[in-house]
Amino acid sequence: MRLFQAEDFLPVEVPVGVSGRHIHLCREDLDALFGRGYELTVYRELSQPGEFAARETVTIVGPRGVLEGVRVLGPLRPYSQVEIAMTDGFRLGLKPPVRESGDLADTPGIAVVGPAGAINLPRGVILAARHIHMEEDRAKALHLHDDQLVRVWVPGIRGMILDNVIIRTSPHYRLELHLDTDEANAALLSGGDKVKILRP
Amino acid sequence: MRLFQAEDFLPVEVPVGVSGRHIHLCREDLDALFGRGYELTVYRELSQPGEFAARETVTIVGPRGVLEGVRVLGPLRPYSQVEIAMTDGFRLGLKPPVRESGDLADTPGIAVVGPAGAINLPRGVILAARHIHMEEDRAKALHLHDDQLVRVWVPGIRGMILDNVIIRTSPHYRLELHLDTDEANAALLSGGDKVKILRP
Repeated sequence: MRLFQAEDFLPVEVPVGVSGRHIHLCREDLDALFGRGYELTVYRELSQPGEFAARETVTIVGPRGVLEGVRVLGPLRPYSQVEIAMTDGFRLGLKPPVRESGDLADTPGIAVVGPAGAINLPRGVILAARHIHMEEDRAKALHLHDDQLVRVWVPGIRGMILDNVIIRTSPHYRLELHLDTDEANAALLSGGDKVKILRP
Repeated sequence: MRLFQAEDFLPVEVPVGVSGRHIHLCREDLDALFGRGYELTVYRELSQPGEFAARETVTIVGPRGVLEGVRVLGPLRPYSQVEIAMTDGFRLGLKPPVRESGDLADTPGIAVVGPAGAINLPRGVILAARHIHMEEDRAKALHLHDDQLVRVWVPGIRGMILDNVIIRTSPHYRLELHLDTDEANAALLSGGDKVKILRP
C-alpha cells in the first residue's frame, strides 16, 4: 500500500468528537415527556459553544427493541430529532437514513418515553452525516468552504479514509470531527484523537 | 474529492460477509460449558467450506457487562477465542486488540457461561483483523499473495477506504471480505454487498 506523505494533507490536525446516541427536543415534546414548563439541566458542556448534554434521559422504543438512558442534548430546538448509530438501529428495528441535522423528511419515527409521559415522534430518527465543525477563519485559511465534502484520513491498524465528510463553518464553531459510535469504534478512535484532512 | 476510475481497482468484486460476535471453542471448553463429550449441532453453514454457526450459544461476562446469546462457531479448534466488536467491548468493559485468528498472546480473558457450567478464559478476546478470503488461483491471477495488505473501497454516502485489509489465500477459501459489525455498520454494508480492491 502506498503511504501518505505530509503534503497529501491540509496543515491542520482535527480532534475527534464521538457522538453517542442522543435526542434533541422541541419545547412541546419536552413538556410532554418531562412536564409542562420543564427546563433541562446541564450535565456537561459540549465542545461546540452553547451546546450541552442534559442530566435528563429518555427511553426510545422501536418496533424490535428498546434503548434506555438516551441522553437529551440542549438547548431546545424547533424540532425533535433522534441520532443513533446503525448498531442501535438493528437493536431498535429501524433503518434510518444518513442525514444532516434538521433534514428530517422521510425519516422513521419512534416512541419516546420520559418521566411525565410518552410521545410518538412521527419522524426524526437519523444516522448523523459525519462532519467537521470549523471556525470560519480557519476554513478560509485552508481554502475550504461551508458544505464542502472532504476526505479524512485515520491512522492505525484500523486506519481508513472517510469519504463525504462535510465541512461546516461558523464563527462560533470549534474545530472537531463528529463521528457516531459505529464510525469511531470501527476506526478505534476516541474523543480527542487527531485525524487529518486530505487535500481536496 | 477526486473520484476513482475503473483502472484504480483490481478486476474483481468482493462480496462482504459481516461477522457478528461469536466464540470458537476447544474440546475441553466445550465439555466444561455443554457437558463431557458434547457435539455441536449445525444451525447454518457459513460461506467458508466446513465452517458453521452452531445452534449452541453462550453468555459472556466482562468486568462491566454481559452479552447473552453469543453464537458458537464450529468446528472445534485447538484454542478457544472470542471475537467481538469494539461496541461490544464497551458494554463488556474490555478493550481487546485487533488480531488475526489464533494470535492470542496478551489478549484479555473473559468468563463464559454455558448450560453445563462456567469457565474463565484466561485470554482469547479479540477484535478480528479485517481480511479477504480468496481462492489461491484467483490471488495468483490478480498478482496478490497470502498475508498481503490491500486497501478496499466502499461506495456510498458512508463510503470509505479501508486500510490494512489482509489477503488470506487457500485453495479451500471462497472470495469474501470479513468485517465485524462496527465496520459494516459504519460503512452501511450488509452481507452480500460488493466492494472493490484498490490496485496495490
